[in-house]
Amino acid sequence: MAKDNINVLFGRKVRLLRNKINISQEELAHRSGLHRTYIGQVERAEKNISIKNIEKIARTLEVHIAELFNFNDL
Amino acid sequence: MAKDNINVLFGRKVRLLRNKINISQEELAHRSGLHRTYIGQVERAEKNISIKNIEKIARTLEVHIAELFNFNDL
Repeated sequence: MAKDNINVLFGRKVRLLRNKINISQEELAHRSGLHRTYIGQVERAEKNISIKNIEKIARTLEVHIAELFNFNDL
Repeated sequence: MAKDNINVLFGRKVRLLRNKINISQEELAHRSGLHRTYIGQVERAEKNISIKNIEKIARTLEVHIAELFNFNDL
């Protein structure tokens, strides 16, 4: 897993946390103030996401931003 | 501190870790493959840094990427 690139790991973590609170990509996008397709792209590691958007997603998923980079549960 | 925005907190953390290993912004930039002025801008919270560049900086500072978002020591 360590070899996976950061976008792949981050995307998987967002999906894991989103599914944990049982919301759709659309709902995560809506609550974060981001576009629905953007969330899909982040989860599929197609976006080089910025720190501001990382923070928006962390807030919506109600986790500390550092938790989004804890990949032990993937 | 919680009220500081993420760019400010992140910039301070990079500076703290850079100073801990006693290297200049120029050296951090060189080792990370980033531009010297870019590192200065990140530390001054003038950049909305991307996840790829966050990872480059974490690697150079030899910390897990999550550690860059641990602001307890600021």
